[in-house]
Amino acid sequence: MSKKFINHPDDCVDEALEGLVMTHLGLRILGEQRVVVHESGRAENGKVGVVAGGGGGHEPFAAGFVGQGLLTAAVCGRVFSSPPAGAVLAAIRAARSSENDGVLLIVINYTGDRLNFGLGLERARLDDIRVKMVICDDDCALSSPFKAVGRRGLAGSLFLMKAAGALSERGEVLDSMVHVLEEMKQSIGTIGASLTSCSVPGGETMFRLENDEFELGLGIHGEAGIKRMQMTNAANIIEEMLNRMTDSDSSCSFPLPSGSSVALIVNNLGGLSIMEMFIAAREAIKQLESREVKVVRCYVGHLMTSLEMRGIQLSVLRVDGDERSWWLSLLDAPTSAPMWPHPLYHDRITPEKLSDDGDHWDHFKRRGPKLSERGRRALKIAIHGAASALESNVDRLNELDSGCGDGDCGSTLNRWVDAVRQIELKLKYPCTVLHQLSYLMENKVGGTSGAIYGIFFAATAKAFEDTDISGITPDRWVRAFKVGLEVVMKHGNAQPGDRTFVDALLPALEYLNLHSKSCINEILDELLAACEVAEEGAEKTAGMRARVGRASYVDEDLVTKPDAGATAVAIWFRGFVSALDSELHSVYCARKKHGKRNNSISSSSSSDDE
Amino acid sequence: MSKKFINHPDDCVDEALEGLVMTHLGLRILGEQRVVVHESGRAENGKVGVVAGGGGGHEPFAAGFVGQGLLTAAVCGRVFSSPPAGAVLAAIRAARSSENDGVLLIVINYTGDRLNFGLGLERARLDDIRVKMVICDDDCALSSPFKAVGRRGLAGSLFLMKAAGALSERGEVLDSMVHVLEEMKQSIGTIGASLTSCSVPGGETMFRLENDEFELGLGIHGEAGIKRMQMTNAANIIEEMLNRMTDSDSSCSFPLPSGSSVALIVNNLGGLSIMEMFIAAREAIKQLESREVKVVRCYVGHLMTSLEMRGIQLSVLRVDGDERSWWLSLLDAPTSAPMWPHPLYHDRITPEKLSDDGDHWDHFKRRGPKLSERGRRALKIAIHGAASALESNVDRLNELDSGCGDGDCGSTLNRWVDAVRQIELKLKYPCTVLHQLSYLMENKVGGTSGAIYGIFFAATAKAFEDTDISGITPDRWVRAFKVGLEVVMKHGNAQPGDRTFVDALLPALEYLNLHSKSCINEILDELLAACEVAEEGAEKTAGMRARVGRASYVDEDLVTKPDAGATAVAIWFRGFVSALDSELHSVYCARKKHGKRNNSISSSSSSDDE
Repeated sequence: MSKKFINHPDDCVDEALEGLVMTHLGLRILGEQRVVVHESGRAENGKVGVVAGGGGGHEPFAAGFVGQGLLTAAVCGRVFSSPPAGAVLAAIRAARSSENDGVLLIVINYTGDRLNFGLGLERARLDDIRVKMVICDDDCALSSPFKAVGRRGLAGSLFLMKAAGALSERGEVLDSMVHVLEEMKQSIGTIGASLTSCSVPGGETMFRLENDEFELGLGIHGEAGIKRMQMTNAANIIEEMLNRMTDSDSSCSFPLPSGSSVALIVNNLGGLSIMEMFIAAREAIKQLESREVKVVRCYVGHLMTSLEMRGIQLSVLRVDGDERSWWLSLLDAPTSAPMWPHPLYHDRITPEKLSDDGDHWDHFKRRGPKLSERGRRALKIAIHGAASALESNVDRLNELDSGCGDGDCGSTLNRWVDAVRQIELKLKYPCTVLHQLSYLMENKVGGTSGAIYGIFFAATAKAFEDTDISGITPDRWVRAFKVGLEVVMKHGNAQPGDRTFVDALLPALEYLNLHSKSCINEILDELLAACEVAEEGAEKTAGMRARVGRASYVDEDLVTKPDAGATAVAIWFRGFVSALDSELHSVYCARKKHGKRNNSISSSSSSDDE
Repeated sequence: MSKKFINHPDDCVDEALEGLVMTHLGLRILGEQRVVVHESGRAENGKVGVVAGGGGGHEPFAAGFVGQGLLTAAVCGRVFSSPPAGAVLAAIRAARSSENDGVLLIVINYTGDRLNFGLGLERARLDDIRVKMVICDDDCALSSPFKAVGRRGLAGSLFLMKAAGALSERGEVLDSMVHVLEEMKQSIGTIGASLTSCSVPGGETMFRLENDEFELGLGIHGEAGIKRMQMTNAANIIEEMLNRMTDSDSSCSFPLPSGSSVALIVNNLGGLSIMEMFIAAREAIKQLESREVKVVRCYVGHLMTSLEMRGIQLSVLRVDGDERSWWLSLLDAPTSAPMWPHPLYHDRITPEKLSDDGDHWDHFKRRGPKLSERGRRALKIAIHGAASALESNVDRLNELDSGCGDGDCGSTLNRWVDAVRQIELKLKYPCTVLHQLSYLMENKVGGTSGAIYGIFFAATAKAFEDTDISGITPDRWVRAFKVGLEVVMKHGNAQPGDRTFVDALLPALEYLNLHSKSCINEILDELLAACEVAEEGAEKTAGMRARVGRASYVDEDLVTKPDAGATAVAIWFRGFVSALDSELHSVYCARKKHGKRNNSISSSSSSDDE
């Protein structure tokens, strides 16, 4: 027995109807019948009642389409079984207008439904109720000449129901409604395809499809289709469907000549994901339009399902020429029926794409303080020093990352190394270069590391922007980086001790914050000391339990090595500082001897703008 | 690789977004990003833009909720992957109002989303756009104290998005929107359960559930939940979900005390049938109300899915007291977002059922001509004769029916025999007794046979009603029965030669129509001759190919016996005529000898009315 989210097979249809009625204003269940009516249950005086229905298992059809402008009453049988004639009769009586303008039955062409709705109709006539029936047989798959029962009724019948509801609202009389619908039904075709079968509650799967098969041309009662085919992609499945629908060798083909216009229903048979459903809709529209068939309306959703079947049906209503295009006004008329899809239109084959402002670091306005030329040079060398240090440690970082991560921490950061080497760093404004580094992290590194460093550099840049334009002192850098790290911690929800890069970077920045110097050679000493603080911090993560990120899902005992992310900080920080040190040390130590003190990584008043 | 209705795993999200945009008026895709915006893509001047999003595979979230009164822009990543920060930034820029009243990001709590939305936000701030972020963490399942990442964000975030959209429409400023949402998010809880896992396009099923298992407390990225449990019915699954949600031992429990009021989301995780979805909705409402938790709104549908997973999530928003009940006005505010469910309300625990007029044959108004007392007696004896004949042939009819039918034709009709013997036949008006026979066929026999004979008797009754009140001649009976049969043929789409009961009944009625007599003893002779015509007709069906009904699906070569339905006609017709003959023959032959000719099965002018 297939697994279902139900209470008991016998109660499924009743409980689903109750669920629908409980959650939708204005729907009511009639007596002990499986009949759903709107509020009072009667058509307004002088208007024709519209009744449709069929077996259960096709939800939301038909009860979900009860509402003003659509069905006056819906009648429902057990799963995949016609409703009994008594229920049909109850629905007819309920839908009758008090001025007795009659009731229109819309029946989908199955022998059981024809007979039970037929019996309900005959019994209603004995009650002197005017009743007429329109039978929809829109299936384009089955064509055996030996079966007088004709084509099956499928989701294309929804066009008739919507049109009937609109005609009734307009005050049309019963006979003219029948006339319109009889003409309209000649212009409807439907074809289905599915990846899976379905199972009636309490029963087994109704037919079996292998993982490399799909079924073409099936109905909505779990019966097999006309052809089992090799599984293929969405485009090919839709093409097979449209080919079958329009196959002139088939006795039930439905022509879609070039130049015709259609309203399209893309009906989810129950279990197809919403993603796949919209892929199917897109493909159907594109292929119809490539056949020069214009799709002027499109309705997508779960409309007439076959339990949990993972398939779709395409129904088309041809609305060519003036004599048919007025049908669109019937489809467009408002309805309060809860499950009718929001009005959908298709007015272009390829969705118009709005232009995007773009997102490039070079769009970033230069602002904040400027660096001196010497400062730029030192910063460039330091950044490349950080890159070289990371490059030398790719394998070590990968190894630390394996077991509790993807084992790619080193390789991931090495993408940043490559990117930094390929790009021309814009060093004049710290804001700009930080923005650039953020952009590279996001777009070249990607993933969690890319986002973390991307936030770090972007937030540091923002902090720099607020820095007094007149001075880029070492403590300004430290403060900006500290703000950047705090923002990362907020977004990543990471605290010290969580076994992340915070455990290396935060102590180093805090050390520098405490030991801030305005003299560059002194700060170089402190930077070297901070490298040790970062390294100690990274080492300590070996004893920590991960609380964020992927490692938090790994058994504690397996995590005995230092955290790769924290170790990476220690590595690039050391690389950055070492390169800065060797670049600046000789210069400034030499200058110091000459009594000159200057903070050369600082603002400059030079006017060069690039 | 799991079977999917897709073109290529890499294109799924883009094609689904395109399908959504192609079929919904006013949606646009922004540039090359996976960003969907409404029309112009900007919030109206002076209004705050609202942006949400996340990985693909959750359709219709978030793009389907773009529209006036809901999201200004939605941003989408690859399947189950966070959107890149560049796309987030593009969405923020697009959603910004030209008067720059800022943008609110609503993010569901996953590390990737936090970081990428965080990075987008930091980058936007560099652009001087005012952006704030609210993170929703509504999951009530995961509670590991070692995971700082906190509770997951799930479908309860939709309450925040809807509220934000409504607040923006009202012209609220960014800070006060954040204030409202931060308070509201404390009042949201969500719990999930599923019967199946799902698979990312191109991948395998993400976790495996046996047919006797369900998973409790899962998220929306195909990850396993907190507990695998023995499969049970819908009521028990919902109970486990609510118990877990409100479990005070859990660190992420969500209390639902007696007397509280909630808005409820019943979110289909993708592949649950619509029938099961409404069963779940009904069960959730009933169980909440039995805990004295009032459900004041209910939204049911595919809102935030997990590909094709066959499960549901229940999200509740507590709206207790005056200070919270105004939130309902935000949920109720109109929106043009295409996939937001129609406004649903719950205002009663058990749906009110309207009274039904009832359907009993004894409600039928007496009309048409009346039978004489002798006529009534003869008709009663004939009907019982038909019944006895069927009873004697149950096994024979079953045997004829086996192989091409259910093998129960005899047994089915025997239910009518039993019913006729148990009921008091109302014989005064032919219309009434025919209506009675129709009712018994529908309600005691049922199935296709019951419907066919039900229509036959009901349509015959209707034809009799139109008969001249003054005379019930034999040819009136024949004509009425012929009308009845024609109506059956129309409803059942059966023609002579289709191997049905028509092949026995139609020739017999046509024979009688041709040889109509006004004298009862002569018509008795013709009736006996008509029995032979019916029998010949039934025999001839042995060579016919079935074109309607179940036998039409059976290989022609297997069908060499006469049709059971046609044979049944020959049997009951012979039984009916024989009984009538033996009842009337002596009487009228005797009378004839005395020169009296009378059509005693005819109208009577007696005034007895019962």
